[in-house]
Amino acid sequence: MASIVTTEETLPSQELTDGQDGILRRAFVGEYTFETGGYLPQIELAYETWGQLNAEGTNAVLVKHALTGDAHVSRGDSQTPGWWEDFVGPGLTVDTDKYFVVAINIIGGCNGSTGPSSPDEHGNAWGSRFPFITIKDSVRLEARLADLLGVHSWHTVIGGSMGGARALEWAVEFPQRVKNVVVMASTAQATAEQIAFAQVQTEAIRLDPNFAQGDYYANGVRPDAGLGLARRLAHITYRSEAELEARFARNAQTGEQPFVTTRGPRGRYQVESYLDHQATKLVHRFDANSYLVLTEALMSHDVARGYESLTVALARLEKVNVVVAAVNSDRLYFPAQSELLAASLPKPKPVHYIDSPIGHDGFLTDAKQLGPVLTALVFDD
Amino acid sequence: MASIVTTEETLPSQELTDGQDGILRRAFVGEYTFETGGYLPQIELAYETWGQLNAEGTNAVLVKHALTGDAHVSRGDSQTPGWWEDFVGPGLTVDTDKYFVVAINIIGGCNGSTGPSSPDEHGNAWGSRFPFITIKDSVRLEARLADLLGVHSWHTVIGGSMGGARALEWAVEFPQRVKNVVVMASTAQATAEQIAFAQVQTEAIRLDPNFAQGDYYANGVRPDAGLGLARRLAHITYRSEAELEARFARNAQTGEQPFVTTRGPRGRYQVESYLDHQATKLVHRFDANSYLVLTEALMSHDVARGYESLTVALARLEKVNVVVAAVNSDRLYFPAQSELLAASLPKPKPVHYIDSPIGHDGFLTDAKQLGPVLTALVFDD
Repeated sequence: MASIVTTEETLPSQELTDGQDGILRRAFVGEYTFETGGYLPQIELAYETWGQLNAEGTNAVLVKHALTGDAHVSRGDSQTPGWWEDFVGPGLTVDTDKYFVVAINIIGGCNGSTGPSSPDEHGNAWGSRFPFITIKDSVRLEARLADLLGVHSWHTVIGGSMGGARALEWAVEFPQRVKNVVVMASTAQATAEQIAFAQVQTEAIRLDPNFAQGDYYANGVRPDAGLGLARRLAHITYRSEAELEARFARNAQTGEQPFVTTRGPRGRYQVESYLDHQATKLVHRFDANSYLVLTEALMSHDVARGYESLTVALARLEKVNVVVAAVNSDRLYFPAQSELLAASLPKPKPVHYIDSPIGHDGFLTDAKQLGPVLTALVFDD
Repeated sequence: MASIVTTEETLPSQELTDGQDGILRRAFVGEYTFETGGYLPQIELAYETWGQLNAEGTNAVLVKHALTGDAHVSRGDSQTPGWWEDFVGPGLTVDTDKYFVVAINIIGGCNGSTGPSSPDEHGNAWGSRFPFITIKDSVRLEARLADLLGVHSWHTVIGGSMGGARALEWAVEFPQRVKNVVVMASTAQATAEQIAFAQVQTEAIRLDPNFAQGDYYANGVRPDAGLGLARRLAHITYRSEAELEARFARNAQTGEQPFVTTRGPRGRYQVESYLDHQATKLVHRFDANSYLVLTEALMSHDVARGYESLTVALARLEKVNVVVAAVNSDRLYFPAQSELLAASLPKPKPVHYIDSPIGHDGFLTDAKQLGPVLTALVFDD
């Protein structure tokens, strides 16, 4: 049984279009058996919307967030800027005056959708009992929410990084429900290196003595050091070597001395302080189990799973307009992977590039560079 | 007071040239005050030699090992192959029939030279009390051993990765004692990204509950998981993305299932099994504190420290023949860093390339590619 709720109360479905923009809502989407056999008796998905669904139901755009992202894409009526504030909003590339924009927090996360920190039916956090999830699971659950929202077919599904993986999987899983899909800085199948970096990150969390095999919620201490360590590594992969060098070189952090001249902790280089800052920020906004579950989901990412080959899987997109974009300096989702995806489509396409020196995170900071391309190829109605 | 010993007994100095090739020896090089102020009352360096020092003392070659390497470069009279078996030996590029080849285990390591696991004067491991060391410290100590060995001037100092950093520092610190220096897959100054990857590794070790702030030797348990985690990350940086993809793609390890369909640990992808294997191998042969101390030494690497600029530091090499080499697919010590080093020399030089798809480790696996270049430019006497 699927139904729409706020955190505190059930709302009638017309609340969907009467509601304010950019405000977190939640919907029950029922029980679910996961791709690898896990089961949850009741799943909620948290989401935000902007603009209005038109009478024909043809103007809905689904924006997919990345690994530690959330549904707050654009400020809307809230006071808080969204993470794609210069890309999604009134008059912007994804125009909330024209489109009914939806963003959904992924299953397994910690921003309102059911995840490892959510309570089971007895009020205890799922913790280590939370099922293994895949990107396919995430989009299957989101299809239920689309039904609730009255969106039979998306005008566009768009996302970068894990959001790009989710967008592509949406189109492969439900090609009849997606008109356009925009896959930015992502891939059709997680590579050996992406799996390798991910393993280091999941092992970092598990190494933290506060992790307690995932059942730390009642302990008063969380595996912050492990999660922070995972984030340090992830963040290096999100930026380019050239950017790190240009910003930090081997300068010492102000007031610190990386050479210890007496006993005591060594002072830090600027780049260490920067990574510490990234770690601390994430620890304050994210749950370690969610990071684990979503990282393993991304390791599992393979739109070809269940099909004879990648080509066969992508053949399902014959009637979908696929736009592939990459950041030219990306060294986590290399441009070559985007080129491979674009070349493997039923109608091979050129890859569109974000020109940024900073690496993978260019899909966040410079998505607006794709404005003209997307206006011409996708948002042309 | 410096003197030469084996583990069990003091040897007369003529033992140096009468001894067998490729057998570990040790020498006391006295007390030492480190660059950042630490002090040790007595330091031993472990080393191996091959061949004979000629009467003029002009044929000595110093081979420098990398981060977790050791002095066993070539098998010599031992039964154990060395790590540069196809590059250093009778009739090879570094010809032990012609040169007196020396390799020294770095201070701070765990293969015979004084390190954190070595006993203090009361028989207790130094552990957390081991001083902060720098690459400059390491070469200053090795100059004392060179004195003991009767080597006033090296024909050549050669190394890759941290060995390249050590080789370059040797030449900058003692330009009058080095005729040729070969710096492979290395840099004059650790970069922001190298520092960043290093920080993740040192934090991984410190996160291990068995680390005990570095004083774990008497505890019966060692921080193997933390050291293994550090190694996983390091190993990814030692190889190229293309190699990992070609070898492993996203294949499951034989007999394992990366999708959990029932409760219990998730099966591994091949690349995860590979990293597990690399971690396990290192943990059985290396000490976590040594890994920490040497990694922080490498973070500190900067041949310009104490000089007005890199150019001023490298100006000291005016009379040294410098050969710079890089691996074309290296993404830890990027070719651009070798190019910068070569261009900053008093007499700018071209960089010589090892053509290998595997990344940084190409300096180990394919050094022999440099044979013709080194024979022409260095070993031409």
